[in-house]
Order: sequence, then structure tokens, then C-alpha cells
Amino acid sequence: MIHFNNVTIVGVGLIGGSLAKVLKTKNLTDRITGAGRSRETLDLALKLGVIDRMGEGLSHAVVDADLVVLASPVGTFEAAAREIGLLMKKGAILTDVGSVKGALVKRIESLLPAGVHYVPGHPIAGKEKHGVAEASEQLFRGAKCILTPTTKTDPQALETVKALWSAAGANVVLMDADAHDHIFAAVSHLPHAAAFAMVNTVAEFSSGPENYISFSGAGFRDFTRIAASSPEMWRDVCLLNGNNIIEMIEQYQLALNSIKKAIERQDADKLDALFHAASGLRRGLG
Amino acid sequence: MIHFNNVTIVGVGLIGGSLAKVLKTKNLTDRITGAGRSRETLDLALKLGVIDRMGEGLSHAVVDADLVVLASPVGTFEAAAREIGLLMKKGAILTDVGSVKGALVKRIESLLPAGVHYVPGHPIAGKEKHGVAEASEQLFRGAKCILTPTTKTDPQALETVKALWSAAGANVVLMDADAHDHIFAAVSHLPHAAAFAMVNTVAEFSSGPENYISFSGAGFRDFTRIAASSPEMWRDVCLLNGNNIIEMIEQYQLALNSIKKAIERQDADKLDALFHAASGLRRGLG
Repeated sequence: MIHFNNVTIVGVGLIGGSLAKVLKTKNLTDRITGAGRSRETLDLALKLGVIDRMGEGLSHAVVDADLVVLASPVGTFEAAAREIGLLMKKGAILTDVGSVKGALVKRIESLLPAGVHYVPGHPIAGKEKHGVAEASEQLFRGAKCILTPTTKTDPQALETVKALWSAAGANVVLMDADAHDHIFAAVSHLPHAAAFAMVNTVAEFSSGPENYISFSGAGFRDFTRIAASSPEMWRDVCLLNGNNIIEMIEQYQLALNSIKKAIERQDADKLDALFHAASGLRRGLG
Repeated sequence: MIHFNNVTIVGVGLIGGSLAKVLKTKNLTDRITGAGRSRETLDLALKLGVIDRMGEGLSHAVVDADLVVLASPVGTFEAAAREIGLLMKKGAILTDVGSVKGALVKRIESLLPAGVHYVPGHPIAGKEKHGVAEASEQLFRGAKCILTPTTKTDPQALETVKALWSAAGANVVLMDADAHDHIFAAVSHLPHAAAFAMVNTVAEFSSGPENYISFSGAGFRDFTRIAASSPEMWRDVCLLNGNNIIEMIEQYQLALNSIKKAIERQDADKLDALFHAASGLRRGLG
């Protein structure tokens, strides 16, 4: 059974807060320190009992930690690693929950001194409502958690982080960091970009005499739910996983072109084929 | 209070079946006849008590009806109007629940003899599960129902259909048929085409060694839920509202291009602006 003396969570939002609740519920740590940019968030986390204390600045918060979890927006990871790497205890583990791995993993690795063990992670969990008030120790139950160890990853630290996510109820999957970024560009980053683009498209028609968006139904709301996600987080993801996301946007535009051309040709059979394939696959997802 | 002797529902699926349940629950008719292509569906509707009898063929089903509701896929409406128009009683009302109005309304109007009153309608209700087993008299409660009368529409028949949808709990909105098709191309038809295209995009990456779609999370499932909708229905909608849908797909591709270009330029401010605008608007929808 794993046990930590001091865990520091950087960014106590939905994901960081939920992991803190797992650590507490399962008695996996003596103490949890919260850190992050927003004093308001940390006050709330303290009040809710999600963390035990808040760090006075990032550096101070990590000095006695045997586990540090980066759960702030992924765009802040590199600077955070640069700030805390040299301050962390020998033998301590740094992990993260970011949606981008790939080149970022190599950069973070290069910033850490020997003896600080980095284990890159990405739990596939979340909901459109964010913030620590939404945190739950149930959030990761049954979800996949991807870990992307490199050739440099310490095997013992990897086992510890695997055990942590297993305790959260997640199914741990090991994967290459670049493969991760290509897969999640397709199944997560593209849909978010597409949802933002969809709302912006309809918005252009919503300032005239007819407010188009007021006629939207449940389908539009489902389709665009993820466009209510944190703009900062998705900006960072787009910047850090740009090449893969551009590839996926282009593939998606080709798929839209297939439908457009079939409509132009009034090709009922082609539309049937395109829609049946998608419908069948989607129904299989539940 | 409106009351019918005989109502015939052509296509007893989710929408037709739900309207039948409203008619029964509110005691708005003496008898409901079901008609449609699928004997199996009609048997089930009869067994569930949604209809009182099934018509032996479309023509036979409408001869004594004072209200006929077309609730089959919108691509069948023109042929149905051609088949039943001359058989309907003088003074009877023909209405429909189709997602496309515009030119189709004019074609249907031209096929009906004087004395048969056509009132085009479109309730904005539905869910991804279709079929009469999902029908509910609550389906239209609080939903908008668009009616698109023309200069030829009989005012009395319009009042009757308005009263019917009000009894179902819907908020009736009158609108020009062409305006309807432009609005719904944006808020409904485009999102469906985009969801089908999204599933097809990810499907292309799901036949290799890594099954990409198996890594999709709640966001992808929400985004693509409407891709589980009836392919036949959306094929018909795309064929009948083609020009508007093509316009919207092109607008959508421009919005995707804006994101793609901002990523290419690594323009954080532009991504921030694009995502904030969408996120703010989407949050307002609930």
C-alpha cells in the first residue's frame, strides 16, 4: 500500500481537488498542501477540507513534499517545473494530469535534477463544470488514466503513481507520449476546437433580428456542451499540441467536404453511407 | 377547445407517437389511426395503446380523418401528399412535423385540392433515442413549435393547429418557411452534419493498432450524441435543405480555419479571444 507524508497539489480545481479527495478518503497521505495562482480557490479548498494547508508560494509549498501533482492549466507546467525542480526533495515524485504529453514531457524531464522522479500522467476524466466545489473522489472511478513513462522514468516512481491512480479507481494505461498526443488530438482536442467553432458560427447569425441561437434545441446543447470548458486550458492545449490538432482539423474539414459534396450532387446513397457509418459507430459508444 | 373525430398519424415514431399520446391524454380526439411503412412499428403502437387502429395502406387510413399528421421522415412527405391529397375529406387539415419547410411547403401546397387545409409545422423536440416506445405526452412541454403558414393557409386551420400544440405544452412561434430553413440549417442541421463528420474522422484512426475511439471520454460522447440519430432522416434533411446547409458548412469551415490559423501562428491572444467568445455564449445556454 502506498503512503505519502506530504502531497502538494498545484492547481486545486476539479481534477486536482478530486485527486486530493481520493488521497484523503483512502488515507494515502498525512497532509495535503494546496498551491496555485488563485488565493480564492485555495481558501475555498481549505474551507471544504480538500487541502490541509496552503503553500506560501509555489517554492515553499513543495520543499517537504514527497509527491507533487501539477494540476494547473498545462501551459503553466514548464515554468512550474523550472521553479520547483531544484527545490524538491531527493527521491520525491513529480507527476501531472495534463492533456498534452509529447515534447512537453521531454522539456519537463530536462528541467529536473537527478533524484527528482517525473511520471507524466493524464486521467481521462472531467466534466463541463470545473472548480474545486465540483471535486469528487468518485471522479476517476472507471476512467482511464494514461501514464507516458520515458526511458528515463524511475520504475519505482512509476509503480507508485500507478498505485495512486488504481486507488482512485482508474484503469491505468501505459502509452508513448507522442502516441498519446496524436490520439487525444483526435478524440478530445479536435472535438473541443470544433465545439468552439460551432458556437462561433451560430453566433455570427445571432445578432440580427432573429436570434438564431435561441432556436437551438437539446442536440445543439449536447453538441456544444464542451465549448463551455475553460478557454485558457484549451488555448494551452492548442499551443502545445498544435501540429497534431492542425492535422485533425484538416481531416475533419475533409470529412465535412465529403458531406458537402454529396449534398451538392444530391447524392442520397452517399449521404446514407456517410451517416450510417457514423451512426452505427456512435451507437456503439453508449 | 379543439376536438377531432378521427386523427391519422403517418409515421408513429417518437414524434408522431408523442403527439398521439397528447391527443389521447387531453381527450382531443375520438380515434387515432396509425399509418406508415413499418408494420412492426404499427403493431407496437397498437399494443402500447398509442393508436386505436392501423390503416390498411395510406389512402385508406386518411379517408375519414379530420386531421392528418405527417410524422414520417421528411423525404416521404411529397409522395404522401400526392397519394392522400385527393382522398382527404373537404375541410380536413393536413399538418406535418418536418425539420425542413421552405420549398417543400410550396410543393405540398400545390399538390392539395381546394378544401384540404395544409398547416406546416416543426416541433423543436426529440432525443437521440427514437421509436414509438420512447414516445411521451411530455415530450413537447416547454419546447418551441414553429408553424410556417403561407398566404394560402386557412386562418381557421392555423388556429386549430396552434391550439393542438398549445395543448401539448409547446410554445407556438409563427415564422416564414424560408427563414425557418436558414435558422435550422445553422442551429440543427449543421451540428448534425458536423457530428456525423466528427465520428467519421475519428473512425479513420480507429482501425489501426490503437483504437482511437476507445480513448474518447464524456466530452466526445456529448459532442457526437446526435450522430446516433436516424441516418435516413438526416439524409432527407440534407437533400431538402441543401443550399442552406452547404452555406452553414462553409461558414463552419471558416470558423475552423480561424482556429487552425491561430494555432499555426501560435497566437495565444487570438485563441483566447475565439474560445472566450464561444465559452461565454455557450454558458448562457445552460
